[in-house]
Amino acid sequence: MEKKRYNAGQVIFNVGDAADGLYLIASGSVGVYFPGNLSSNKPDITLKETEIIGEMGVIDSELRTATARAYSEVDVIHVTKEDFEKKLAETDIIIRGVVAVLSDRLRQLQKRRVGQN
Amino acid sequence: MEKKRYNAGQVIFNVGDAADGLYLIASGSVGVYFPGNLSSNKPDITLKETEIIGEMGVIDSELRTATARAYSEVDVIHVTKEDFEKKLAETDIIIRGVVAVLSDRLRQLQKRRVGQN
Repeated sequence: MEKKRYNAGQVIFNVGDAADGLYLIASGSVGVYFPGNLSSNKPDITLKETEIIGEMGVIDSELRTATARAYSEVDVIHVTKEDFEKKLAETDIIIRGVVAVLSDRLRQLQKRRVGQN
Repeated sequence: MEKKRYNAGQVIFNVGDAADGLYLIASGSVGVYFPGNLSSNKPDITLKETEIIGEMGVIDSELRTATARAYSEVDVIHVTKEDFEKKLAETDIIIRGVVAVLSDRLRQLQKRRVGQN
């Protein structure tokens, strides 16, 4: 796990990037932009301190489905895929199942949403 | 945790019900119906053995956002909210954060989807 700082407007990851882990926001706010809204200044979702971004890519090895940019100056804790997978392997089977099912359903709904744009 | 059996067509839970836990499907298949499709015979999602239903209500105490009906005869393992919360409390903080964020995003996307119907 590693602390990283981004300036306002700086890209944390782009849609289509390989997943390199998740980010826990330590301070500041991050904008999330879905396809169809990638060059907008108005994020689809704005996330702040203690919230997590990039969790989807970590869970199922697919590519990033959204772009994340620093909305203000932000500090994040980067949890690599290896860190995350080790934690998940030590987790109860029901919790692991819930993580898997939430991830699958979210990706299905996002795909339908992209299809509607 | 308790094993329960449902006959084809029998309701496991209805949209708007208080959440009474999640269900791990042990055998058979379950149809999930979102608002706008509640009286249909064609489920929005069909889930089978080893998959989980009802996880949303367990995580954040809101009411069921979909109806689940047995699609064939099904056996499920019912994990109560108390069982689940005990498991979650024993789980690593990053995993807990991921469960929370996946749950929030899914609910946001489902709300938008309902708004489009």
